[in-house]
Amino acid sequence: MSKLGVWLIGARGSVATTAIVGAAAIRAGAASPRGCVSESAGFPGRLVPLTALVFGGHDVAETSLRKRAEQLGRAEVISPDLPELLASDLEAADAEIRPGHVPGAGQTAARLIDDIAGFRARHGLARVIVVNVSSTEPPVDARPEFGKLADLEARIAAGDDILPPSSLYAYAAFHAGCGYVEFTPSTGPALPALAELAALRGVPYAGRDGKTGETLVRSALAPMFADRALRVRSWSGLNLLGGGDGATLADPAARSSKRLSKDQVVAKVLGEPVEGETHIDYVPDLGEWKTAWDHVSFEGFLGVRMTLQFTWQGCDSALAAPLVLDLARLVARAHEKGRHGVLPELAYFFKSPLGTGEHSLAAQYARLRAFAEELS
Amino acid sequence: MSKLGVWLIGARGSVATTAIVGAAAIRAGAASPRGCVSESAGFPGRLVPLTALVFGGHDVAETSLRKRAEQLGRAEVISPDLPELLASDLEAADAEIRPGHVPGAGQTAARLIDDIAGFRARHGLARVIVVNVSSTEPPVDARPEFGKLADLEARIAAGDDILPPSSLYAYAAFHAGCGYVEFTPSTGPALPALAELAALRGVPYAGRDGKTGETLVRSALAPMFADRALRVRSWSGLNLLGGGDGATLADPAARSSKRLSKDQVVAKVLGEPVEGETHIDYVPDLGEWKTAWDHVSFEGFLGVRMTLQFTWQGCDSALAAPLVLDLARLVARAHEKGRHGVLPELAYFFKSPLGTGEHSLAAQYARLRAFAEELS
Amino acid sequence: MSKLGVWLIGARGSVATTAIVGAAAIRAGAASPRGCVSESAGFPGRLVPLTALVFGGHDVAETSLRKRAEQLGRAEVISPDLPELLASDLEAADAEIRPGHVPGAGQTAARLIDDIAGFRARHGLARVIVVNVSSTEPPVDARPEFGKLADLEARIAAGDDILPPSSLYAYAAFHAGCGYVEFTPSTGPALPALAELAALRGVPYAGRDGKTGETLVRSALAPMFADRALRVRSWSGLNLLGGGDGATLADPAARSSKRLSKDQVVAKVLGEPVEGETHIDYVPDLGEWKTAWDHVSFEGFLGVRMTLQFTWQGCDSALAAPLVLDLARLVARAHEKGRHGVLPELAYFFKSPLGTGEHSLAAQYARLRAFAEELS
Amino acid sequence: MSKLGVWLIGARGSVATTAIVGAAAIRAGAASPRGCVSESAGFPGRLVPLTALVFGGHDVAETSLRKRAEQLGRAEVISPDLPELLASDLEAADAEIRPGHVPGAGQTAARLIDDIAGFRARHGLARVIVVNVSSTEPPVDARPEFGKLADLEARIAAGDDILPPSSLYAYAAFHAGCGYVEFTPSTGPALPALAELAALRGVPYAGRDGKTGETLVRSALAPMFADRALRVRSWSGLNLLGGGDGATLADPAARSSKRLSKDQVVAKVLGEPVEGETHIDYVPDLGEWKTAWDHVSFEGFLGVRMTLQFTWQGCDSALAAPLVLDLARLVARAHEKGRHGVLPELAYFFKSPLGTGEHSLAAQYARLRAFAEELS
Repeated sequence: MSKLGVWLIGARGSVATTAIVGAAAIRAGAASPRGCVSESAGFPGRLVPLTALVFGGHDVAETSLRKRAEQLGRAEVISPDLPELLASDLEAADAEIRPGHVPGAGQTAARLIDDIAGFRARHGLARVIVVNVSSTEPPVDARPEFGKLADLEARIAAGDDILPPSSLYAYAAFHAGCGYVEFTPSTGPALPALAELAALRGVPYAGRDGKTGETLVRSALAPMFADRALRVRSWSGLNLLGGGDGATLADPAARSSKRLSKDQVVAKVLGEPVEGETHIDYVPDLGEWKTAWDHVSFEGFLGVRMTLQFTWQGCDSALAAPLVLDLARLVARAHEKGRHGVLPELAYFFKSPLGTGEHSLAAQYARLRAFAEELS
Repeated sequence: MSKLGVWLIGARGSVATTAIVGAAAIRAGAASPRGCVSESAGFPGRLVPLTALVFGGHDVAETSLRKRAEQLGRAEVISPDLPELLASDLEAADAEIRPGHVPGAGQTAARLIDDIAGFRARHGLARVIVVNVSSTEPPVDARPEFGKLADLEARIAAGDDILPPSSLYAYAAFHAGCGYVEFTPSTGPALPALAELAALRGVPYAGRDGKTGETLVRSALAPMFADRALRVRSWSGLNLLGGGDGATLADPAARSSKRLSKDQVVAKVLGEPVEGETHIDYVPDLGEWKTAWDHVSFEGFLGVRMTLQFTWQGCDSALAAPLVLDLARLVARAHEKGRHGVLPELAYFFKSPLGTGEHSLAAQYARLRAFAEELS
Repeated sequence: MSKLGVWLIGARGSVATTAIVGAAAIRAGAASPRGCVSESAGFPGRLVPLTALVFGGHDVAETSLRKRAEQLGRAEVISPDLPELLASDLEAADAEIRPGHVPGAGQTAARLIDDIAGFRARHGLARVIVVNVSSTEPPVDARPEFGKLADLEARIAAGDDILPPSSLYAYAAFHAGCGYVEFTPSTGPALPALAELAALRGVPYAGRDGKTGETLVRSALAPMFADRALRVRSWSGLNLLGGGDGATLADPAARSSKRLSKDQVVAKVLGEPVEGETHIDYVPDLGEWKTAWDHVSFEGFLGVRMTLQFTWQGCDSALAAPLVLDLARLVARAHEKGRHGVLPELAYFFKSPLGTGEHSLAAQYARLRAFAEELS
Repeated sequence: MSKLGVWLIGARGSVATTAIVGAAAIRAGAASPRGCVSESAGFPGRLVPLTALVFGGHDVAETSLRKRAEQLGRAEVISPDLPELLASDLEAADAEIRPGHVPGAGQTAARLIDDIAGFRARHGLARVIVVNVSSTEPPVDARPEFGKLADLEARIAAGDDILPPSSLYAYAAFHAGCGYVEFTPSTGPALPALAELAALRGVPYAGRDGKTGETLVRSALAPMFADRALRVRSWSGLNLLGGGDGATLADPAARSSKRLSKDQVVAKVLGEPVEGETHIDYVPDLGEWKTAWDHVSFEGFLGVRMTLQFTWQGCDSALAAPLVLDLARLVARAHEKGRHGVLPELAYFFKSPLGTGEHSLAAQYARLRAFAEELS
């Protein structure tokens, strides 16, 4: 059985640790693949089994995966007995985590590429997929060098540190011949120069910003209003985030990346801009949990005003981790089948899908299934 | 331009009055067709225009449509200046309302048929569609005569009053050569003997129980859980209904019709029974409005428990009326195109769709669009 | 330092186990008295310290306290490391649990009295308070013997098993010279014959039905509407209960005890009956947790209609256990100070306070503080 | 019967118009005093009857009260037939509205004083109370002249326009010998120099920021947590405001006045700062309505985490107007009884009560009743 390498940027974060623990627990028979879209009954096609994943990655943090897993056990994200039960798996993955890129610390592209290639070689892997689950970056201003690969390569060759970290990782992944998944709202592969590179290297990629909570529900509900010809008058939301994700988003610049990503779903599905804002608050007390409240005011027959409210209370890592496992395996399969460049068929997983403007959840899911069928 | 007759059972109820006022307001240029699915941008096909509908119906109540419209104006369902503005339209429709069937009052099938046929003749209509928007009936026990048309006709010929009112109206509609829409949870055309009659007379029908609030949202959200491989552990709900609908449902037997209809959506979409009940309370104070709260407990990756809650606050008549206009026109078009028997393609509009087990809103909508395309 | 005996009816249930674990954890310095009203900063008076409580009780269940604590650890009600840390305390309490009364199993009053008296003697306790935290009983029909102690004693002497279990325990407590707290909605001491007995024996008692969630919030909010002259038009609620409490309440008769208890708060505070029902559902999936949604429709200036909704998500045992510790110590102090009979000053803790019609939370709290001051 | 003058700053705004319409409707027997605290059953003392109020005021807007009332009728704040029914009362009040102060337009204090004094003289009123219900101002930086009346008068005499409008109105009111109510979050009388002036003129005043929705509920619920020794871990909120109030608050500076006012209640009642923010969004679509969602995370026995959420949907003007009528009459009575300076006894009505740090709703209400008793 051929193994698949999953190289996680932010490999010691909550999402990555949960994904690694989860895959190990499934292999050990201690958990079911609940939450993995590709493992649900009747999902078409055959992907690399969840038991055949090998993990490594980059991180600037040094806390061991075992310790991170224990923290998640105390936070009730994973069962507190898993870290001990899966100790050897966690140590093996830990041994494959390399120091992450520190912005301003000089040229690292070559080193990152070597790290990934070395991992592939050590484990004799046919394929490695790089998945970014690190902290959200602020939006990036356009630069001329982002538009053309040759210009970008020239700057990198000159030792200039011009790419945001997520894009640097995508650059390294593509150069290493790996598919890439941008699971955060960061820029990642979404630069023309990097699209050029992916084409050149024949590698596929997908993104952006994993759709795991409020936006997931929005993309399920907004089409209901549109199809029923009910006019949405305003759509407001407040997100309360604890833990790592929230802390990053305490930075207004990073938060603006995330808000842009969230706001567009409703407007895109409804085909017109809609009143109302989406707030993101960092509430450390909530730990690994997040709560979102949405308020929708809409108008029906003869102008009558009505409202829908929802409250979503979820555990971010538990929602994101199985999607990371889905995406790595789907992109690997696409790579194997010769697909390269952006994969709009994976829009179902993202708040800001690259390569498509489709935001209706059901339409995205239909496309995903067709894609899975096609790949098998 | 050919006109279409819409014959409403419960023609003086809130839903019927709102539909009649709405159609008149649209014709008068005083309202837009907000909430009419078939009038939304990009909806395929051409139906009889909303301005070409002629209304009549049966009702046991005697309050005039004008008075009922004024009540709805005070209840903020319609603008308070519409009843006066549309007085002549309301009077015209009022003149076409005939006494409804009173259970136990002896054989009335022939009279009901004559009422409908007379309406068609008076207005020179090519087609009349009968839509039941009257009060919900209790569930009906199966009887041998319901299984075969010949047996049923024999009992009716003998003067036996064995059909529940909704089924008697469907029987009359079919005999009069009219399509029929069962917009309530009542039995209506859902008896084998009546299916036989519809086939014999070459008329189409659709039903059951218009999907206008809590169940609409459920059918949009349940597929989200299923597709994401999130296991729903419990789904509970409390519906607070005022007005006419609530009053009928104060009767536990009628309420049980409605609850059966609501509960099945989640179980059908998820493919397994789910813990939790759906309560329906009559709260007269709420008037024409209804509020529903739903609580969903679900399980994600590694068994983590999460919850989704929603509150829907809507005006029942404003939600139902435009769908009545959609359905009458869609069934008329199907009739014109030679379709007869049950129309599963209209499942999108119903809590308990006849002729199909499909409960996912998006799948239902896709099928509706394909149907509309096919009819054009 | 003088110790206080706390004799729990339902000593192996979730509430009792949480109370015993909590008191032991506080003694061990492993927890703070969070949730104990009498331990909050500035609360007047001095009660027996939480570290000076000795536990025993009756229960029909045989699972050891240690095992029950481990279950609560897995259910995230208590920290999973507490059962091992506090093993000796749990074993000590376990050794003082005697078989509970089994209805229909013949005369047990004398045996129950002996059990309590033996506990007091073994530990050289000046005082024991009996607290009922067992399952809710159905409402009980009035009987002539309930009205007069002599008649009741005659029936008991004749071996007739006429008292509901909660009242039998109160009878035993009073005979043993102990104060009694009815923490459930069951009848308990609320019979004239038992009031007579409490007076005769000079013992105090309090009850009924610990106020720990939805009703707590109701009693905080209802006075807000009353004082602001806002008219509440309807107040509806749905309670979703898991665990032991919910299972008992799956029995409609027991549920009706609880609903009666809940419904009266709003009507009493507002001074008039209010539309709307309170539903209680047993949802096993929720485990030790409960969720309540309340919907209040109210009318303001010039008849404008407005609404308030709230959702309470709590852990029943964690809410009840500290109140059990408060009540045992407050009743003990009242006993010491010579109070006997019903203690209306403890209404703050109950949904259906015995001895008073006061349901406003703030008024109840003011009275509790005055009482605590008086006792010190 | 002696009449009382009510002079409204912002006399053509929604709150003022609703108050004027309401008082006229009550006088005409067309409405009850629902929402007036001082008119509720059992409220102690006797105030000037609601039928004995005479209205006037300042406003920069020129739309007539009749037209404003018609707008409120269309917005469903008042019954649409009231403006016609009460036309003569509205015209009478309209005739007593004078141009408001325009910042930067030079010295107006003398003119404002004359306007108020003229109103009193024309109607032979023993007493006039000035109530500010105009738009919220941004917070004001401290200035040395605000500290001492002599310095302030010197600057005003020199023609300097240094006071924020609300404080200028308070200044004018005090000079005219009138009591003053600051119903907005603006500075108003809360300057040492103005306290000096009120003492000198022997006039009472009260404020600040009428408590009509989210904060009202907060002040009812926060004491529940405190008294039950439950630790609030975070308290977050999102306010969606339409209409005039919202539009003003679209200005971040004005919004910050309001947020400061809202945030302090929870911290003051709980005695410690609490995590979480309160957002205020302007959502024009909501018209005269406002919706607030609050999320409270709290910790109980043994550290268990629980949550309370509430949603408040109210009509701002309908909530504020009856309190304006209460306050004018209570301050008038205090004036009559010889009280001057700040009235902390009226804290019950305000988010940021002047003269006291008491934020518990029940404690504020008890103090209000005692005050009302004392005044009678």
